[in-house]
Parts: sequence; C-alpha cells; structure tokens
Amino acid sequence: MYPFTQGSFAVRNGWYVAAFARDVTRDLLARTILGQPVVLYRKQDGTAVAVGGRCPHRHYPLGESCLKGDSIECGYHGIAFGPDGQCTKVPSQAHVPRSYRIPTYPLVEHGIWMFIWMGEPDRADPALLPDLAEIGADGGGMILRPFYSEHVKGRYQLLNDNLLDLTHLAYLHASSIGTEDNASVPEELTREPGVLRSRRHIRDAAPPPVVRTFHGEDIERIDRVVGMDFYLPGFHAGIGDMAVSRSNPVRGGEQLNRSRVYHAVTPETPTSCHYFFAMAAEDEAGLDRMDAYLRPVIAEDKFATEEIEKMLAIVGENPEELLLRSDRNAVEGRRMLQQMMDAERAPA
Amino acid sequence: MYPFTQGSFAVRNGWYVAAFARDVTRDLLARTILGQPVVLYRKQDGTAVAVGGRCPHRHYPLGESCLKGDSIECGYHGIAFGPDGQCTKVPSQAHVPRSYRIPTYPLVEHGIWMFIWMGEPDRADPALLPDLAEIGADGGGMILRPFYSEHVKGRYQLLNDNLLDLTHLAYLHASSIGTEDNASVPEELTREPGVLRSRRHIRDAAPPPVVRTFHGEDIERIDRVVGMDFYLPGFHAGIGDMAVSRSNPVRGGEQLNRSRVYHAVTPETPTSCHYFFAMAAEDEAGLDRMDAYLRPVIAEDKFATEEIEKMLAIVGENPEELLLRSDRNAVEGRRMLQQMMDAERAPA
Amino acid sequence: MYPFTQGSFAVRNGWYVAAFARDVTRDLLARTILGQPVVLYRKQDGTAVAVGGRCPHRHYPLGESCLKGDSIECGYHGIAFGPDGQCTKVPSQAHVPRSYRIPTYPLVEHGIWMFIWMGEPDRADPALLPDLAEIGADGGGMILRPFYSEHVKGRYQLLNDNLLDLTHLAYLHASSIGTEDNASVPEELTREPGVLRSRRHIRDAAPPPVVRTFHGEDIERIDRVVGMDFYLPGFHAGIGDMAVSRSNPVRGGEQLNRSRVYHAVTPETPTSCHYFFAMAAEDEAGLDRMDAYLRPVIAEDKFATEEIEKMLAIVGENPEELLLRSDRNAVEGRRMLQQMMDAERAPA
Repeated sequence: MYPFTQGSFAVRNGWYVAAFARDVTRDLLARTILGQPVVLYRKQDGTAVAVGGRCPHRHYPLGESCLKGDSIECGYHGIAFGPDGQCTKVPSQAHVPRSYRIPTYPLVEHGIWMFIWMGEPDRADPALLPDLAEIGADGGGMILRPFYSEHVKGRYQLLNDNLLDLTHLAYLHASSIGTEDNASVPEELTREPGVLRSRRHIRDAAPPPVVRTFHGEDIERIDRVVGMDFYLPGFHAGIGDMAVSRSNPVRGGEQLNRSRVYHAVTPETPTSCHYFFAMAAEDEAGLDRMDAYLRPVIAEDKFATEEIEKMLAIVGENPEELLLRSDRNAVEGRRMLQQMMDAERAPA
Repeated sequence: MYPFTQGSFAVRNGWYVAAFARDVTRDLLARTILGQPVVLYRKQDGTAVAVGGRCPHRHYPLGESCLKGDSIECGYHGIAFGPDGQCTKVPSQAHVPRSYRIPTYPLVEHGIWMFIWMGEPDRADPALLPDLAEIGADGGGMILRPFYSEHVKGRYQLLNDNLLDLTHLAYLHASSIGTEDNASVPEELTREPGVLRSRRHIRDAAPPPVVRTFHGEDIERIDRVVGMDFYLPGFHAGIGDMAVSRSNPVRGGEQLNRSRVYHAVTPETPTSCHYFFAMAAEDEAGLDRMDAYLRPVIAEDKFATEEIEKMLAIVGENPEELLLRSDRNAVEGRRMLQQMMDAERAPA
Repeated sequence: MYPFTQGSFAVRNGWYVAAFARDVTRDLLARTILGQPVVLYRKQDGTAVAVGGRCPHRHYPLGESCLKGDSIECGYHGIAFGPDGQCTKVPSQAHVPRSYRIPTYPLVEHGIWMFIWMGEPDRADPALLPDLAEIGADGGGMILRPFYSEHVKGRYQLLNDNLLDLTHLAYLHASSIGTEDNASVPEELTREPGVLRSRRHIRDAAPPPVVRTFHGEDIERIDRVVGMDFYLPGFHAGIGDMAVSRSNPVRGGEQLNRSRVYHAVTPETPTSCHYFFAMAAEDEAGLDRMDAYLRPVIAEDKFATEEIEKMLAIVGENPEELLLRSDRNAVEGRRMLQQMMDAERAPA
C-alpha cells in the first residue's frame, strides 16, 4: 500500500513504542498494533507485559476484562490467562490443557517508553532498541517527559514522511516553530544500519518566532543545529540546539536552548496509527513551556496526516507523486523500510 | 461467515420474531430482516401484515410512506400497494397491470410476538412456531410482557452463542444475576427436531445477589433449575425457577420465583441483528421489578456482542477458536443451524 | 452502476455546475467533482479558475492551503502552483522544472453559475453551455438568485430521475407545491441534441395549496404550464407559469406567477453529489417568498435521494425496477447519458 509496494503494510520484526511507560499500569490498556489486538499491563511486581487482546474462546476483548493477580480473567466467561499467555482457569472445567493460550509479545520498558515486538519473538533483540545515551534520553543532565499520545486516522508512513522532511516546518507550522531555513539549507544525511540521520547546520539565521518571546527581543540572528535521527521502523529522535549568532556583539555564542524531541509512530491498521511525542530538556520549566507550546504543532501534523489519508481515499492507493530534492531523506527512509518488509516476506 | 461456513448467513426457512405484537400498529414499522427491507402494519380489521419495504418503481422506502386504508401509498410518486402486495394505484396511468407488486411475507401474531417467515412462503407452517403452552406463554397463571427491543451492531449468532452458554452469567453479569454455579454445574442437553434444550439442576447453592434483596436476607442457600430452550432458528425460552434450599430449617422448600424469559434474535444484516427480550411472571409487581433489574443485564449482552463484532472486524472472519466442554450446547446449536442452511442451498 | 451499466459512473465531457459564482472568491473553495479533488478561486483580476485539489508532492489538500497572489502555496511544504497549474516555487530548490504541475479545468462563469469541464479540455466548448436567454436567465425582466447549495449523500442520477419525473410533486411534496395534476396530465417530450424537454399544459385545475395563500382565496382554478428542460449532463431549467383559469369570471386569465427554477446536479463520488438550486422571478419580494417556501421542498428531494441510496446499499446495485408510462422522460434522460458515457469509452 502507498507509499510501499502492494501488499506491504509494515515491518513486523522491529521495536515499536506501544505506550508511554507511565500509561501501563494495573489497569488493562488495550490497543491494536500492526493489526493485532494487544493488552498491556503491569504484573504485581511492577513488570510490564503485553499479551494478545482477544480471548480465543469467543473473541471477547481482553481489554474489557479484569486483572486478577497477574492474570487476565476474560469478562465474558471467566477464562483466565497468565502473563505468559498460558490459560490458568476455565470455570466450567477442572482440567486446563497446556494448549490453551493467548499470544505474548516481547515488551521492554526503555526510558519513558514501552517498546513492543510484534514479529518473531526470538528475533526480539534489545540491542536493536534506540540507545538512550545516544538519543539524550539517559537522564544525563536532561529531564525526559512524555508529552502526548495521539490516535491518528492516517497511515503511519505519512507521519514518518513528515518527520523525514523538515522542510514542512516553515509552512505547516508557519505560525510557531517554522522558519524558511529548513527548506533552504540543504541537509546532510548519514545512513547507518537501522538508523537514518539528517542534520542541518543553519548559521546566522532569523530565529523562529518563539525564540524572541522566550529568550529576549534583542536576539536577531541565531545559529542552529536541526536534526532528526530515524531509528527504524518507527522512532525518531530530534535535535534542535540553538545559540545566539556570533554576529551578536553582546550575547554571541550564548546557548539558548538544548532540547531533544522524540516522535514514535506505531502502525495500528493500514490506515491509522499511534503517535507518541516526548521531550527532554534541561529544566522542568522549559518542559512545561514546550508542552503548551508544541501542542498545536503536533495537532497540525496530525491534521495534515488525516487530511492526506482522506485524499488517498478519494484518489486511490497509487497517486502519481512528485519527488523533490528535499525528499532524499524520506525516500531513503521508505527504501529502508521496504527492504525490511521485502526481507520478511522472502523465503528463509 | 463466522461461525458458519463461507457464504452461510442465516436460515431463511424459519420463523423469526419481526417485532413485539404491540409495536405493529397503524403506523408503518420499517425493519431490515435477513437483508430484506420489510414494512409491518395492521390492516383496518386489526390483522397484521408484512410486505416488502422497497417501492419497486424507484426504490423509495415504503416505511417512509403513508397508510391509506389497507394500502401503502409510496411517499415518492404515490404508487400504492395492498396488503397482498398487489399494486392498487399508479397515479399517472389508468391501467395497473397485475404484474405490479411487492413481496409479502407470512406473518403470525403469536403470543406477544409477531413471527415472520422470510423464506419460501409455502413452507411457512405455523406448527413450526414455539408452542405457547410449552414455553409458559399461554397465559396459564403467568403474565407475559414485552420488555426491550434492541438493535445490536453484531451478527445474530453471537447472541445465540451467548444464550446457548450460560456459563457467562457469572462473569459478564457478575454484579447482578451471576453466580459461579452456572459455570461449575454441568448441563443436560436434549435435542429434539428444531429444539435444543439445556438444563442445570443446581442444589443448595448460594443465591445470586438479587435474591436476598427481593426475598429476604435469611436465605443463604437455594435450589435452582436453570434452563434455556432454543427454538431454531432464533427463539430462546428460558426457565429460572428458585426455591429456598431444603437445608434452611424455617423456609426450606419455599418457592421464591417462577418466571420465564424469552429472547428472540433476528438477523438484520450479516453484521447486525434485532434482539427482543420479554418475560413471564406471576404478578405485575414482579415484572416491574425485573424490567428495571434486567435492563443492565441485556445491555451487557449487547455490549459483549458489539465488542466481539468489532474484534472480528480487526482479526477477520476466520479467527482460531478455542472450544471448551461448556460449548457443547453452542456447538450443537451452530451445527443444527448450519445443517438447515446447507439443506436450503442443496439442489431439490 | 445503477441505473447505468456496470462501470458507468458519469459523463466526463460535459459542463457541470461546480459552484454558484458568488461562492468562488479569494478564499479557496475545495470540492470533489467526478471523483477528482478540485479547488476553485478567483485571481486578483477577478477571473475564476479551477485547479486540481491535491498537491502532487505529498497529496496534501490544496484547499487547506493559502492563496498568495494568484498562486496556491501548499500548506504542507510551501510548493506553489499558478492558476495555469504550473509550479512556481519549491522552497527547497532553486530550479523548478516545467514538468511540475497540477491539472487545471476549464471553468466558465455563466449567469450565476460556475460551470466546470472535467473531461478532455480541448472539447470544452462554451457553446455547449445552456443558453441563458433560452432558460430565462439573461436578466431580461427576471431577477436571478442562487438559493441553496446542498451536499447530498446519494448518487446524482437519483436527483436527475427526480427532476425528470414531476409526478412526484403530488406525493413527496404533497404539503407544499404538489397537486395530483402532474401525475394525471400526460407530458409532451421533445428531444434535441443535448437537451430533453418536458411540458405539461394543465387547464382549469385546482391550484397547489400555496397559490391561494399568495394570490387570494378566490382563486379556485388555474391554468398552468409545467416544464423541465434537461441540459445534459447535469442542468435542469424549469418553468412553472400560472394564470387564473378562464373559468373565473372576475380574474380569468390574470397572470399569477412567472418564475424559473434551476436545478444543477453534479456528481461528487459514485454515491454522492452536489445540488445547486436557483430561481428567477420578476421581483425580489417574490424571490424572498420562494426562498423560504421552497427550502422544505428541496429538503424533501434530498431526503428521498438519501433514503434511496440507503436502500440501494441494502438491496444491492441491480434492483429489479418497475418502469411506468410516466418514466418515459427519465428513461430517455438515462438513455442519453448512457450513450454519452458509452461514446466516451469507445476507442476513438
């Protein structure tokens, strides 16, 4: 399906964010991920687990059920399943065969995220998770905070495309974070196994509208590093450092902002996805400010994604597409994902 | 379609409840039954009839039309059809050929129900209707009352499955009518032509929460007969007699409750159905009480049905299904329906 | 698709009303027409244009974008397109190849309407537009006024059928404009290239309920000319002149009402359309009166159309259809449209 080959939906063997860690509790959290119903919860010892969300008896949603100890008791006929997927109780029969079970999914609490692996369980290698130190999410001087969880009625790749092409900042987000520099300054791309990095070094440029509000009206020019690292298949870690431009005689070189943004995009159905946005910054006040400030920005990205999904419903799955020079990063990201999907379908 | 073979939707040659008798009046009542639009109304002499709900001229819904005498006058161009389906007027032409007509469906007012036959009309034998005396609905000492008509966004068989497996009472209805006895006491099944009977004799058991409220806190143990008779293809008559357990020194053997429940399940579309719930009890006060008391119970069954339909939309039409010993009745019910459907499709 | 042959949706080479002229302004107006997203706007010199509504880069709706001068700047990445469809700016690159473009559609401001041509542009001949003098919309003594724009969740041909068979007036609009004369008086049909005309000369007939209200309770009989001219593929110009019947000794022959109605029906998707209703009358007061008076009438037509579309969703695309003598006009209209569609699909 667009923008992939027919029959390609999503990479299965990869870590996706299933939820923010704080949202997985002793209350069952139901979510469809890669077309599969999943329930997330914490055991009594605090460990988080992910199991299939459908009772195999009559397909009642286990997310509408009860947690009893570490087991889910189906809300329909009381059949219970442990966190290992094993059936632990059938009220109407004394003997419970070992074959009665629900799927379980590898789930790793990693930073502020719960990463799930929907593919072959024995390939779920934690070494494939984004490195927390590398993405500035290891707590070293920066405070990490989950911001928003969004359900988006658009296919996940539209959001990946969005994040892989920051030339949209000046237009979709014109009223807030956008300046035209992202579109006019060429980006440097680096491809590593499973990671695609983009950087723009912007020198002596006009600041985004918000910078003066927060840091002083005397800032006329800034230096910026804008970057986004795509950890395939669905995690983007962004860098947005700013300093007062050297051309400023008084404050030249002063660091204004050091922050990290984290966008996680997780396929739900072929035409919808989950979107998790988080940040790291040096102080709580800065995070509070960004939380309020970025809410409309994320809403704009969600809006664009949903509008494009509606457009695809009108014009069909294979719209002619104009590729620009600025699409290099998005095209490379799509190509890497397509390769991973092709490899999954290839006979072993 | 699930849980039947591909292409099997529903038995056509069988009586289904189309409405409660009281709801068929001189106002046109439109309903889709087994995928066919139907309109129900009473003639001036009080007889109820069922005709096709689509004007054959321009497909306008006859349910949005007017009753003139015993004929429906289409609300669009004024073409009229009598209760025998025959066209009686075409405003723009003097001559009305005999071939202008709409379908009619055999309709029988039987107890408090209107039973319709959507299949071959000459096979519509009233002897195939549930026997009113047998189901305690002949007025012999019991008062019959229609309770609720529900439109359910789930396939009819999910409700049949629900009614054929009362082990769900303890879980889906835990807060009201449920006790674990239905799950733990084995049922006795009897198969007769067109009827499938289930009985549980529960001795010296804790009463459902509601019993003490209604009959006294001194009732610690009761004896119960719980049963459900499935009159195929879509009518279930239930028995729920209770007496104070013989172990009670003061009130032992005292009859607490004699009531009948009637569940009618009628396919609308492949993924939706009509659900009619009624009761018989010995006094009006008891019926009033049950009316209020059972409303959330039926809502829970509707909820479960709709949630499972949503789950099937996610996981597809052929989910793997775990069959338990307690499913004997449901499996037998499905098998009987499948046989009827197969017979309808077999060449004569 | 019903009522046309399988695969036939709509005539492409023909003028359709895209909007009332007054609604095309310097604000972008987005609309789907014949399954294609379109944006309408006026250039700075006042000329109206129609261009494709999808940015070819990432399929963002150009209707959710900004007009900058005479160009649309896509709200997502800032790519701009002129009114000739040519890309005028790509923020991330200096050179813009000539091949970057969006479709444009011939658009003609004609009377109070904007007519669009969605088919082959070189066949868009303004001579094929309805002649304004012929339809009484050239301002010669009559005042033209757009009344309502409706989005209708039903296929366009249901509305065409409605307008080609005025025998529905007496029934669907019984409480307002209807009398039974339209059904009982035969119509005269005239077929010209691209136009299908229907006329009924009704003599000495009871007036529609509204006539007495507006013109006096002493009017017992009237003479009427009722007509509708279908300018294929989607424009209907109606005539509804009335005079007091010659049988009235006092007011006999007095002209009561001279007005024209204009119904434009434009396919949106296979199961939805746009509907534009306008009138011409001799004075503003008459138009005010009709605006209020006809609102429920048009709502009834919309209701019937949407109800029939729902019925088709239940009974499928090939319902058996009863054809009456009064359907001659509708059948001829369908046949002419089918011929045009067949010709478009024929190899050149």
